[in-house]
Amino acid sequence: MTPVDTAPAGGAPPAAPRLTAAGRRTRDRIVRTAADLMFRKGVAGTSIPDVQQAASVSASQIYHYFGDKSELVRAVIRHQLERTLDGQRPLLERLDSIEALRAWCAAAVEVQEQRGCTGGCAVGSLASELAESCEAMRGDLVAAFDRWEAPIRDGLRRMRQNGTLTAEADVDRLATAMLAAIQGGLLLTQVRRSTEPFRAATDAAIGYIETFTA
Amino acid sequence: MTPVDTAPAGGAPPAAPRLTAAGRRTRDRIVRTAADLMFRKGVAGTSIPDVQQAASVSASQIYHYFGDKSELVRAVIRHQLERTLDGQRPLLERLDSIEALRAWCAAAVEVQEQRGCTGGCAVGSLASELAESCEAMRGDLVAAFDRWEAPIRDGLRRMRQNGTLTAEADVDRLATAMLAAIQGGLLLTQVRRSTEPFRAATDAAIGYIETFTA
Repeated sequence: MTPVDTAPAGGAPPAAPRLTAAGRRTRDRIVRTAADLMFRKGVAGTSIPDVQQAASVSASQIYHYFGDKSELVRAVIRHQLERTLDGQRPLLERLDSIEALRAWCAAAVEVQEQRGCTGGCAVGSLASELAESCEAMRGDLVAAFDRWEAPIRDGLRRMRQNGTLTAEADVDRLATAMLAAIQGGLLLTQVRRSTEPFRAATDAAIGYIETFTA
Repeated sequence: MTPVDTAPAGGAPPAAPRLTAAGRRTRDRIVRTAADLMFRKGVAGTSIPDVQQAASVSASQIYHYFGDKSELVRAVIRHQLERTLDGQRPLLERLDSIEALRAWCAAAVEVQEQRGCTGGCAVGSLASELAESCEAMRGDLVAAFDRWEAPIRDGLRRMRQNGTLTAEADVDRLATAMLAAIQGGLLLTQVRRSTEPFRAATDAAIGYIETFTA
């Protein structure tokens, strides 16, 4: 297996070995368990023995599937991105109006309320902790944010096509601004234990997008 | 000394013992050194022996000034906030027009460019790592973001008073949205190693504020 630390920035993760159904279930359980531990205690605060104990697997099983901790962390980045997108996919994939943008953000507010505003963004927390750790991981984080930004940009592009937004609307920049508002809003919401910062941030981003309505 | 873990949320930090000039210099050196290490390696990745070695002090000196690691971390939060504000104070304290907002953000872009977009926001990184660690630290982070937001809000209030913004402008919400754009923009700028996300995020926030111009 390619050592992760020497993988190129943004390079594809090493191909997973062919797994049996049972092997895939074990691998998935390890990733889910590691993701939950890292979400609560940070990557640095989560050791392989912690994962081993919580997932009820042996150390050799973890190393069989992941080679080393950084490979497991890279799998966790992909897992947390998918989990984050899964939660918002129905609304995220149907952004075609200002109202749809507002409904998507309102659903995120509800999720935060259910959690008592704890935890922040699973992907954002990983990004903050790991952006300087190694180029391969930073590449994974770039890919994760790109994958999140793409459906936002697609939605804005649909809005430009359906006449909601004018031709002047730079959908790439607007999508980035929207994602940044979400990230900054979630961090302040986590710290302040209030959904108000997230709402203020996303209302402003949507309000700015609205200045490009036809 | 009050154990930090039991201090109330947002409670005042324990009063620093009266220090001689030499004592204050040593204490400051410990905080600066710890801040630099924690900025590069995270709080979890920085041990008291690491700080001790890098600051050329004994463990007992660190414990004399700080009691325990979490008290040192709380001092680091205050230090990083002050350092962050110091860098932008001249522009931050004179926000009185849309142009002044733009100049303030342009200066932040320049800082990011000088750093090759590495490191992100020192305060934001601490917030992401520590928001769930204990209520006292979360309280310190709330105080840090409040202190950062206050001059933004004051600037927007001046803009409302001098007729730049209309009476409808909710300066509290706009200041929060601006700070969130900065935080989210810095995180994406760090991950993508490009100032474009920060510029897109802050241009959008300022563009939204501009919708309230008279």
